[in-house]
Amino acid sequence: MRLRNKPWAKDFCQENSEIVIQDAKDRKGKWSDQFANKAPIYLEIGTGRGGFIVEMAKRNPEINFIGIEKFTSVIVDVVAKIKEEGVTNVLLLNEDATNLLDFFEPNEIHQLFLNFSDPWPKDRHAKRRLTHENFLKQYEVVLVPDGVLQFKTDNRELFEFSLVSFSGYGAPLEEVQLDLHKVCDESNVMTEYEAKFSAKGNPIYRSLVTLGK
Amino acid sequence: MRLRNKPWAKDFCQENSEIVIQDAKDRKGKWSDQFANKAPIYLEIGTGRGGFIVEMAKRNPEINFIGIEKFTSVIVDVVAKIKEEGVTNVLLLNEDATNLLDFFEPNEIHQLFLNFSDPWPKDRHAKRRLTHENFLKQYEVVLVPDGVLQFKTDNRELFEFSLVSFSGYGAPLEEVQLDLHKVCDESNVMTEYEAKFSAKGNPIYRSLVTLGK
Repeated sequence: MRLRNKPWAKDFCQENSEIVIQDAKDRKGKWSDQFANKAPIYLEIGTGRGGFIVEMAKRNPEINFIGIEKFTSVIVDVVAKIKEEGVTNVLLLNEDATNLLDFFEPNEIHQLFLNFSDPWPKDRHAKRRLTHENFLKQYEVVLVPDGVLQFKTDNRELFEFSLVSFSGYGAPLEEVQLDLHKVCDESNVMTEYEAKFSAKGNPIYRSLVTLGK
Repeated sequence: MRLRNKPWAKDFCQENSEIVIQDAKDRKGKWSDQFANKAPIYLEIGTGRGGFIVEMAKRNPEINFIGIEKFTSVIVDVVAKIKEEGVTNVLLLNEDATNLLDFFEPNEIHQLFLNFSDPWPKDRHAKRRLTHENFLKQYEVVLVPDGVLQFKTDNRELFEFSLVSFSGYGAPLEEVQLDLHKVCDESNVMTEYEAKFSAKGNPIYRSLVTLGK
């Protein structure tokens, strides 16, 4: 993802604080109150430009969505999409997701999505991969019992690492797809990156694991 | 694998009964006695034409190998290879591996190999796939504690099924390779099928799971 410097981005987020929540830590345990209803909450960590979360929100009005994106210059595109589409069931956090427990109480999230996360290819950075067991521990806490983590990537090494990581953590694999676009799954919502990458003919990997307890 | 009718095959196996063991069920629990030494025993289920097991035996003289192949017209090629190469650490069983416990005592096998097993693509045949939990139960019995199952296939659907099956069974994934020939692994011994299929540029999948208890 190319990052462009947007000096106006921070102000733009503050002006749209009904979408980009500014005091996210204070909402911990009270996210349901931020939405129009008490519907289940789905969380995407790393929204990128928001193609996935906004389309998911449109297709699933009975679900509330929270997206976390650390890059301010990127999250402004998600805000623009949310306004353009007029969806009211998405909130955003312009935060680093490293300490998820600062933002969510146990069992506050029903499903969790990781889409095309940074592969951190060097071995010494393995702990930064969002499917490392240190993160799985956090996901397990914030997810409801038997909550589902859906993970998509085009990065073969990251997917291999992740399958071993899920297994080592004892998180049961519900489904594995090793070439997602070869099967007809109309429920699959593509990210911008996914559409571009897949057009080159490269496989997209997807797994579903149950994690919450 | 194309099967040719070879009316002489059965006689040929009997003539080579020092390699193709005729009374395999009677050897249950006594396989070590059949070899020149008490080395660990590795088992391949479905040898095909034997490219894998014979090369493995050549490379690993400190290991004893047993190969099971149900097709008599195919196993004769393995016998020919064994004699040609002069390896003395391979025995063959011309048997159906469905009831492995007829042939082996608990903990008699140190490692188990499944190479390019029949994918049985129809859902109603799922129980016939050699990575179905019914087979995993048998492997777990015959393998030593923490014995390893190595599984290779080019069949995407079978590999997806197998990963979910291992996970559901609680067998920890030690390693997953989603494009084996893209990484340099000099210890990988190719089967005849693998060499042919891989030359077309298609990915070969491999997983290692620990199973014995």
